[in-house]
Amino acid sequence: MSTNPWTRRHILSLAEFTPREYDTVVQTAASFQEVLGRRTKKVPALQGQVIANLFFEPSTRTRNSFELAAKRLSADTLNFAPGTSSLTKGETILDTAMTYLAMGTDMMVIRHRNAGVPVAIASAMDHNGHKVRVLNAGDGQHEHPSQGLLDLFTICMLLDSTKPRIELLEGKKIAIVGDILHSRVARSNIWSFTASGAEVHLAGTPTLLPEYFSEFGNNRPGKLFLHWDIEPALKDADFVMTLRLQKERMTEHLLPSLREYHHLFGITRSRLKLCKPDVKILHPGPVNRGVEISSELMDDPQLSLISQQVSSGIAVRMALLYLLGSGKTE
Amino acid sequence: MSTNPWTRRHILSLAEFTPREYDTVVQTAASFQEVLGRRTKKVPALQGQVIANLFFEPSTRTRNSFELAAKRLSADTLNFAPGTSSLTKGETILDTAMTYLAMGTDMMVIRHRNAGVPVAIASAMDHNGHKVRVLNAGDGQHEHPSQGLLDLFTICMLLDSTKPRIELLEGKKIAIVGDILHSRVARSNIWSFTASGAEVHLAGTPTLLPEYFSEFGNNRPGKLFLHWDIEPALKDADFVMTLRLQKERMTEHLLPSLREYHHLFGITRSRLKLCKPDVKILHPGPVNRGVEISSELMDDPQLSLISQQVSSGIAVRMALLYLLGSGKTE
Amino acid sequence: MSTNPWTRRHILSLAEFTPREYDTVVQTAASFQEVLGRRTKKVPALQGQVIANLFFEPSTRTRNSFELAAKRLSADTLNFAPGTSSLTKGETILDTAMTYLAMGTDMMVIRHRNAGVPVAIASAMDHNGHKVRVLNAGDGQHEHPSQGLLDLFTICMLLDSTKPRIELLEGKKIAIVGDILHSRVARSNIWSFTASGAEVHLAGTPTLLPEYFSEFGNNRPGKLFLHWDIEPALKDADFVMTLRLQKERMTEHLLPSLREYHHLFGITRSRLKLCKPDVKILHPGPVNRGVEISSELMDDPQLSLISQQVSSGIAVRMALLYLLGSGKTE
Repeated sequence: MSTNPWTRRHILSLAEFTPREYDTVVQTAASFQEVLGRRTKKVPALQGQVIANLFFEPSTRTRNSFELAAKRLSADTLNFAPGTSSLTKGETILDTAMTYLAMGTDMMVIRHRNAGVPVAIASAMDHNGHKVRVLNAGDGQHEHPSQGLLDLFTICMLLDSTKPRIELLEGKKIAIVGDILHSRVARSNIWSFTASGAEVHLAGTPTLLPEYFSEFGNNRPGKLFLHWDIEPALKDADFVMTLRLQKERMTEHLLPSLREYHHLFGITRSRLKLCKPDVKILHPGPVNRGVEISSELMDDPQLSLISQQVSSGIAVRMALLYLLGSGKTE
Repeated sequence: MSTNPWTRRHILSLAEFTPREYDTVVQTAASFQEVLGRRTKKVPALQGQVIANLFFEPSTRTRNSFELAAKRLSADTLNFAPGTSSLTKGETILDTAMTYLAMGTDMMVIRHRNAGVPVAIASAMDHNGHKVRVLNAGDGQHEHPSQGLLDLFTICMLLDSTKPRIELLEGKKIAIVGDILHSRVARSNIWSFTASGAEVHLAGTPTLLPEYFSEFGNNRPGKLFLHWDIEPALKDADFVMTLRLQKERMTEHLLPSLREYHHLFGITRSRLKLCKPDVKILHPGPVNRGVEISSELMDDPQLSLISQQVSSGIAVRMALLYLLGSGKTE
Repeated sequence: MSTNPWTRRHILSLAEFTPREYDTVVQTAASFQEVLGRRTKKVPALQGQVIANLFFEPSTRTRNSFELAAKRLSADTLNFAPGTSSLTKGETILDTAMTYLAMGTDMMVIRHRNAGVPVAIASAMDHNGHKVRVLNAGDGQHEHPSQGLLDLFTICMLLDSTKPRIELLEGKKIAIVGDILHSRVARSNIWSFTASGAEVHLAGTPTLLPEYFSEFGNNRPGKLFLHWDIEPALKDADFVMTLRLQKERMTEHLLPSLREYHHLFGITRSRLKLCKPDVKILHPGPVNRGVEISSELMDDPQLSLISQQVSSGIAVRMALLYLLGSGKTE
């Protein structure tokens, strides 16, 4: 494990993460990645601790990833299922969280469709002197910090798996393509990639990439660029992250059709010729094959990092739970 | 652990509980409360045993509490999800229970919206010579024994945490306010509180508190009183338990409006002046803030025992599972 | 444990199972049956391994059985819930499976309402060089191998619990009655019973038992017979397996009414007089009491093996997970 002392109480946003914090997460995750390669993929680090997965918005992928990470650390988990919950009985979200706290929860992993809910719960807990830790597992269109960290980790490991660290991204060109406006993943990635000195190029239609996103790049080690065409974003890119396109964007009249979108912003083999020869593709999943990315590219192990992203997710979430839960963070 | 021998086979109702049984539960729960304060909150007492949570009626709070209690005792749990179950395929409830029995279930925790289902299953199991234990986790408007016991335990611990016992409640005045008629919690609490020699005062509108409830108080160590106004119930009370008001009582024409209900029976700071100066408030949750209790009172740690009730729930359910499962109850 | 080396990579169908494989499963399950009789019903065989239960079709009974089997072997489990899944977001089934693979899944237990899905996933995994094991937990009307094996095991144990083996079934007459056409259970049982040298007699209405089923019995150690009346199937039978009748068969006009069906093909005490005096009844559950079998017969412990089938299910599924997961199957 890293010997860096961890002092952050909750993980709610990557906006304020320091380079040292990024490196601690990356190095701790690398240690756990090694554990996951063993036959017995388990460590007793959080034995007897209780982690509550409060997924007010349904999720299979992220919830499973956090749950498996918790089990690998020997913690006990409680799962909140919105369909059958007391919420339908008019209980407030904070009262639900207080109930889990009173049951002895040490850490809460919270997903909610409204931005700010995890922050509000963490703030109320702190205000009342409770020591519970809160992890944001995705809140509305705000942030998805563990996804931003696992993407960073995936890239660091590719660049130097023996000594992964964020300075490896310095000067790398990373394109993020698609529905930036509605993506909490994009926001967390903008923070994690620009913190590490990368050049981040956003590309999307004007309806999906408003001008104000340029503000995210002020005073960061890396630089941020906006493009309303895909070509300048892909030009000489080292990494291309393509975002999931929600079908409801059509009915909201933000896009003409899936076919038109694929034509304008879909990642295809011919477009990839614009990039560096050893370019790699990332996608937060689940993928609409043939919309944001052509099906054949997604399955090319020379190009796609999608499986590595999912594997990294377990290691990074183990690292986050371990750092918050290992008792150095009073 | 208590050295009292436990002989009850199932926990279905508190109507017949003896003072000695109440004390055994309270003292065993106190031992587990101590375990829960440790960093590693786990004991190997029920390792390898299987506990099936058969929640035919959906529940998050009680199911999570039983599940965490089982994990703390190192038992394995099976969860029955009514939505995706064989019940929709026309299987009888008893056949479902028999299936879980055949899978090796040692204890069944059963919730059902119809009164009597846990009793019927326990009786069928006994009749056929099966050794499985049954815990009633709430059946219709009949009983919710673990709730009645955790409320008793919460009060005992407040009165003397070093030596909690039911005689501490002797002569204490406890008001139970609200929708008594439809509350299984109220019924279990009437049994547990009157068994301990407390004075129990029920208060509610005539539609929610029928005359026949006075029968519950016959020949018990404590006394039971009925009030159709709130004031005499609160006068000099040591404890006030306010019940959840189901919104559907309005559409059933049992109550005029939520506002009217709050006006007549809601717990407010000015009404609490009628009580003893150090009065404490209990609520089985989930709370309708501003209906049965004003929001501000609920959050006052000097007044509210709501969080302690939830914590007590884990300790008491550990005690119940331990007492039934530890093998002294053939 | 058996010393027979196990070489099969996945368990997808019983059509190709060898007698030696059947015996290995039966003998390994017998060892685990013994473990299940102990107070601590757990072995560390698969500690740290991850088993993903991918039930694209909802199931309580089979899912719980696989989950408990996994816990008894100390594996960690991940559960896929179709209602809240990424599938509703347009992800393909194979992409879902790939996500679980990337999370570190060692074995996938797959149920799907379409025949062939587990085979397709297993084939894709092999093709791409992934070592994950796949178990078919029921695919459409194709197969339900673990059910076919647990029925075989139940009968072997009844015939000789000290040395269970498939040759014990040689010459035994087994009737399978009911909706053969739509039953994956029947198909798996036809393979397992005819492999062991039993005489298998299928009985059902012509709409539920098409002529082509006679093809299943070619070149097998046992023989297969078709009957459109129940009497010749029951005559001198040693075992009668009655299948669940789906109510929707009525609306599909394959059957006139439940009452008529019970009259023609229901198992009743008077019909059982046609069988051997010590005949036993099996049913894969859940049962429609009074339709495919009279309620009273089902509860007769002298006749019914239904509870034993459920218990056998845990032991057989432990055996399957153990054989695939214990590392001898590269």
